[in-house]
Amino acid sequence: MRTSRRGLVDPFIVMDVMEAARAAEAAGRHIIHMEVGQPSTPAPAAARAALARAMEQGALGYTVALGLPELRAGIAALYARWYGVDLDPSRVIVTAGSSAAFLLAFTALFDAGDRVALGEPGYPSYRQILRALSLEPVGIPARAEDRLQPNPQDVALAPDLAGLIVASPGNPSGTMLGREALAALIHVAAERGIAFVSDEIYHGLHYGDRAVSALEVSDDVYVINSFSKYFSMTGWRIGWMVVPEDHVRLVERLAQNMFICPPHASQVAALAALDCVEELEANRAVYARNRQLMLEGLPGAGFDRIAPPDGAFYIYADVSGLTTDSRAFAAEILAGAGVAVTPGLDFDPVRGGSTLRFSYAGATADIAEGIARLTAFMKQR
Amino acid sequence: MRTSRRGLVDPFIVMDVMEAARAAEAAGRHIIHMEVGQPSTPAPAAARAALARAMEQGALGYTVALGLPELRAGIAALYARWYGVDLDPSRVIVTAGSSAAFLLAFTALFDAGDRVALGEPGYPSYRQILRALSLEPVGIPARAEDRLQPNPQDVALAPDLAGLIVASPGNPSGTMLGREALAALIHVAAERGIAFVSDEIYHGLHYGDRAVSALEVSDDVYVINSFSKYFSMTGWRIGWMVVPEDHVRLVERLAQNMFICPPHASQVAALAALDCVEELEANRAVYARNRQLMLEGLPGAGFDRIAPPDGAFYIYADVSGLTTDSRAFAAEILAGAGVAVTPGLDFDPVRGGSTLRFSYAGATADIAEGIARLTAFMKQR
Repeated sequence: MRTSRRGLVDPFIVMDVMEAARAAEAAGRHIIHMEVGQPSTPAPAAARAALARAMEQGALGYTVALGLPELRAGIAALYARWYGVDLDPSRVIVTAGSSAAFLLAFTALFDAGDRVALGEPGYPSYRQILRALSLEPVGIPARAEDRLQPNPQDVALAPDLAGLIVASPGNPSGTMLGREALAALIHVAAERGIAFVSDEIYHGLHYGDRAVSALEVSDDVYVINSFSKYFSMTGWRIGWMVVPEDHVRLVERLAQNMFICPPHASQVAALAALDCVEELEANRAVYARNRQLMLEGLPGAGFDRIAPPDGAFYIYADVSGLTTDSRAFAAEILAGAGVAVTPGLDFDPVRGGSTLRFSYAGATADIAEGIARLTAFMKQR
Repeated sequence: MRTSRRGLVDPFIVMDVMEAARAAEAAGRHIIHMEVGQPSTPAPAAARAALARAMEQGALGYTVALGLPELRAGIAALYARWYGVDLDPSRVIVTAGSSAAFLLAFTALFDAGDRVALGEPGYPSYRQILRALSLEPVGIPARAEDRLQPNPQDVALAPDLAGLIVASPGNPSGTMLGREALAALIHVAAERGIAFVSDEIYHGLHYGDRAVSALEVSDDVYVINSFSKYFSMTGWRIGWMVVPEDHVRLVERLAQNMFICPPHASQVAALAALDCVEELEANRAVYARNRQLMLEGLPGAGFDRIAPPDGAFYIYADVSGLTTDSRAFAAEILAGAGVAVTPGLDFDPVRGGSTLRFSYAGATADIAEGIARLTAFMKQR
């Protein structure tokens, strides 16, 4: 049967690592997972308890397309708590994870053939989702001196942009944009009629100053967030988007048709998760400890070209002194050290041959063991 | 901020009815809901129990993109049980409801500008999802003598088709295609290089002969199904798709990027639901009773131009003797009888001004009360 051109998206390079790790584990070997971008903790206990109760009380049928009103109100209240921003709940759109939010945002904003810019390195699915929607991803190489975040002048120089996607904290870098740097990007986009999409999925996970939301700078932006990371609910596929007031009806119609509604059970759990501050802050304290272990341990293992991440749970290492083939290097590390890491090529098709991403989302004991293995392996390499 | 042209999809006409019904209920009035396309029953008890257990045992993080291997195997086994078809589980793709399956199928099969045919009347979101993906929906008016299913000759005459979507049982008609009629459509599509997408979401809900799956006719089709209807799990957003063997990798890459994975909790519940035959057959017996009440009662209320539905839980009534404005008529019925019904315009933008859809998915007592109200209202009208 026929296939489309738009469907021919790139594979994830890390899938080879994950498959090799799975095979090694099936053969009885113990592997430390530093390739996975998710917490090892479950959804907060109170969130699971809320769902257990709800399952006995109601049918959990379709909700309205934009999500349960009390969840939208709860998310709006989070903007007051986290940023001091007064947000009308009617602008909050509950989605099936940030994935569904991207699909909604891109179809609401862009037509086939439109060019949408994104910083490189960046989350690989931006590029692939854009392609699947017949949009053209435009990579903006980010500089080390900009801490791997896109530079406003580079954006201004890229011709014919319809959109710009920015993530702070970034994945894989973990670096954040300060208020001024974020505002500079929002302003250059506004001046040129470029739609600004702010991926804030790692908000809540910071190790110094908190992250700045694009909503603190402007109401004329799309902000995308999720319960996956800070709220430890990856598999629940529940997130949200905040859109300008005059875009709500447009996005609602698209959501009704493209998704009907976000998963009801996940909405119930997410609503309760909003109040689980103590448990979630304890998770964050674990990441902070893990981050410290990594920053102390990785240089001794030979990975000394790293920048301390402001947020998220990744360290992006420049390994250009060690390899130009990060895919082969990751395979070698898996085989030799029993540690799975992500080749940079997934995040930066141009320069990612000389970078690796280490995740420290796992348990602290695993992080310590992983560093010890990396150190021993690199010493005898 | 800019908006796209592709995002300007039509609103659901029924939304006006639903909003008016909500307002009436908020004002204290009792409304019978014959507009909703979902069971009033919850997910099977064993499905909810399985999830309650799983929530205490694991983190429920991301699954692989194509879904839990045991769920894919369970769905494949359903094809043996229901149709006597031997299906390789590797061809089963678990999705976030049939909605996600359509997004995956359309991006895997079609490029921007491609023309995709669908029978009218039909599920309104086909058209809107196609538009949101920059595809061109091509309505094929279906005839009463074909029981409102598309005719192969009409498909053959439509120029430049890239795809054809067929639903059996149909929504809103509830009519099914027999094996020969389905094979004729599949063959005309195959001859012309038209991708065939079979929407089988109402399979399991039949009141005479069971529905025929496109997989009984050909392996070179996309089959889309869901746990929403027969398995009574609408709000869980969990469904599946069966694709040709040589399309699995393509769809997997799209699914990894567009969705990451279907909701884990819903996958756990769905796996258990596959075995809940007794509870689900009891639900079906309720629909069968409701259907009988409708077929006996609607003609007496003046809705006598109806065809007995083979499956699903809808009756599509020709009301051309009563109105040419089904939207106004539905509003009048809601106000006068306190019964919410769906104007046909959602399913057929051309002829739907003279049709209504009645859902009998509700409780039997509500269906009986609804018929009594309709009868009294139409008598004094």
